[in-house]
Amino acid sequence: MNKSAPHFESKSSWTAAVLVIGDEILSGRTQDTNVNYIARFLGLRGIDLKEARMVADVEGEIVAALNALRGTYDFIITTGGIGPTHDDITADAIAATFGVGIGYHPEAYALLEARYPPGEFNEMRKRMARVPHGATLVRNSISAAPGFHIGNVFVLAGVPAIARAMLEALDGVLPRGVAVHAITIGGEIAEGQVAAGLAAIQKAHPDVAIGSYPYYRADGGYGVQLVARSRDAAAVEAAAHAIEALLQTFGVAPQRVNPAVQRD
Amino acid sequence: MNKSAPHFESKSSWTAAVLVIGDEILSGRTQDTNVNYIARFLGLRGIDLKEARMVADVEGEIVAALNALRGTYDFIITTGGIGPTHDDITADAIAATFGVGIGYHPEAYALLEARYPPGEFNEMRKRMARVPHGATLVRNSISAAPGFHIGNVFVLAGVPAIARAMLEALDGVLPRGVAVHAITIGGEIAEGQVAAGLAAIQKAHPDVAIGSYPYYRADGGYGVQLVARSRDAAAVEAAAHAIEALLQTFGVAPQRVNPAVQRD
Repeated sequence: MNKSAPHFESKSSWTAAVLVIGDEILSGRTQDTNVNYIARFLGLRGIDLKEARMVADVEGEIVAALNALRGTYDFIITTGGIGPTHDDITADAIAATFGVGIGYHPEAYALLEARYPPGEFNEMRKRMARVPHGATLVRNSISAAPGFHIGNVFVLAGVPAIARAMLEALDGVLPRGVAVHAITIGGEIAEGQVAAGLAAIQKAHPDVAIGSYPYYRADGGYGVQLVARSRDAAAVEAAAHAIEALLQTFGVAPQRVNPAVQRD
Repeated sequence: MNKSAPHFESKSSWTAAVLVIGDEILSGRTQDTNVNYIARFLGLRGIDLKEARMVADVEGEIVAALNALRGTYDFIITTGGIGPTHDDITADAIAATFGVGIGYHPEAYALLEARYPPGEFNEMRKRMARVPHGATLVRNSISAAPGFHIGNVFVLAGVPAIARAMLEALDGVLPRGVAVHAITIGGEIAEGQVAAGLAAIQKAHPDVAIGSYPYYRADGGYGVQLVARSRDAAAVEAAAHAIEALLQTFGVAPQRVNPAVQRD
């Protein structure tokens, strides 16, 4: 646990939002994968991702989104905009959000300086050592350029491999709650056939969130995946049994699905 | 042009936001691909995607996001939550947002009724015919269940293939502006080396948005993709020439990149 880590109290569930920063996401150049990865990472740690937003490289947009999100959720994770180029403005936007100054962080400066051959630590690369006053660095195993966190905002790189390494580095800093337990059951049936039964199961299991996700295969086959989620593993299991029994009333063999191979 | 289409005036650029609705996105179960597809679709039509948000299947969250977005941007596209199951609440949330009633749309009802064998158009499937009063249907080539639009909000399915078909169906309804022209130039050089020159090019070409996106290959190779974007094709070409000249000063061969094969 980093001694400058925010002081999270102890509770069973936490709320978070992700703010994806970058023109490349909104132009369609880049398919974001960070939200999905962060969602899974947080879920395993009992943190509920409640909202995600994607904004352009425009300081006013970033500040407005951060101000809306940081007062609503326990913490915010941002991705993108911390590189060396002119369009990397996340650190400045965070400083503006918190009303603090920004400058070279000695540790970040030293890390980066050591990374480059003599003479190659140029003014633009030094931008990556600029961190809002009062922020704590988030180092990572891939690049010398660190992320940082200040207040309840955690600032990661946009490049997925680096964002993931920074997330790992935050494992002792972010709070932990009780992980959400999920069971996914697949069946080769149209969701409209099981919808009424599923609604009854949802009503009978109000503390379990039940979702229904149809899929359509290229060969014309189709089916539905039914997901039961709750922090109460026994409650999820009970709802899952009810879902399996529902599918069987239609003569459909229910199959528990490995979340890692779920269909769209 | 649908006669009930919203009356968009004529202008060269439009702004839009996407609202992705669904627990499955925020739990990490499903990797969203609709934002990226919609971003590209809109870009080709001169519409700037300015923001995207992802919220859960919670009516209050959907209404709050819609109210924030629909007053800010020319129009909003939503995905998800229009199926037959209990967790499909988008139509109700849209009705609440606009303060209108909701009920079976005769055309949607007839489309769906014709789709199912006698006796199989059950109460839950009829939910897919429920549309806010005053909305216009968005039919699609894949499923009988339509999307709809009301005011400046366009409501699509979440299943990517169906969302895409609905988007195609909106081609004559959504406004068109002047498409953004983009040139992407790749070079095998660290972005920190070209960052100062790139900042100077951005300053000299203020009407062109210049972005810098580093990449790292599994074999240890790395490089940067530099993107110039503007509605003024000549201005993009001029900025692209300046970027190519910059790379050449470092002895790097610039390569124009097909946007369809851009790296992350």
